[in-house]
Amino acid sequence: MGDTVFSKILRGEIPCHEVYRDDHVLAFLDVNPLSRGHTLVIPTEEAATLDALSDESAAAIGRMLPRICRAVMRVSGCKAYNVLQNNGALAHQAVFHVHFHVIPKAEDGTGLGIRWATASLEDGEGLARALREAIRKDAA
Amino acid sequence: MGDTVFSKILRGEIPCHEVYRDDHVLAFLDVNPLSRGHTLVIPTEEAATLDALSDESAAAIGRMLPRICRAVMRVSGCKAYNVLQNNGALAHQAVFHVHFHVIPKAEDGTGLGIRWATASLEDGEGLARALREAIRKDAA
Repeated sequence: MGDTVFSKILRGEIPCHEVYRDDHVLAFLDVNPLSRGHTLVIPTEEAATLDALSDESAAAIGRMLPRICRAVMRVSGCKAYNVLQNNGALAHQAVFHVHFHVIPKAEDGTGLGIRWATASLEDGEGLARALREAIRKDAA
Repeated sequence: MGDTVFSKILRGEIPCHEVYRDDHVLAFLDVNPLSRGHTLVIPTEEAATLDALSDESAAAIGRMLPRICRAVMRVSGCKAYNVLQNNGALAHQAVFHVHFHVIPKAEDGTGLGIRWATASLEDGEGLARALREAIRKDAA
């Protein structure tokens, strides 16, 4: 049994502003929103990071994301939004239960701030080959 | 038929460093990576933004994300990473075909930069009720 604040919300030990729930997925409002309508989507399965999540839970969350995004757009009135899912403290994860943020980007600039410092791709062929091999081994 | 660079990659008119492909999902290296291993995951279905994507495609992408994340971790050696999906120019979307970024956050700081300016949640009860209602109507 998980001991994060999200595990406690799933068990009903801590309240939340629930937006959606089924056997695999819970969605609720972030209590420290980046913008109005900022919603969290989490699996009922206990997994700290996305790489540890089962295929079944990941598919269930994926399926619900467009529906939740449409509702967030309708209610917040936003025309743009970001979906963000952080893994590891270095990558800004604060609660170690998988969660997808759906964050409206409002005309007034509130929402997710992004810094995008790109480089050129090096050894794309070798890198892609290594990734294909890793995915094949994972599925085997 | 879509006219974005990703539609052209899907049709084979533009090459890519392919990482994974099935009937619903294509994954390939970003040619302007934020960090080594930066991978894009897109639906074969034509949809500009996540809210326009079918349940079936969204579930197929969701299901593949943990597998792709595990491969990216293994090959890049990263322990932290971000999954980001942008919708609308204001939210940093540049190619108008749905795409999920899997971005390693390296120890040297390369990767996604995030600015996180939160507020307090206001009228959470009313907002959550409106979202629940919007999701119910969407499903009906």
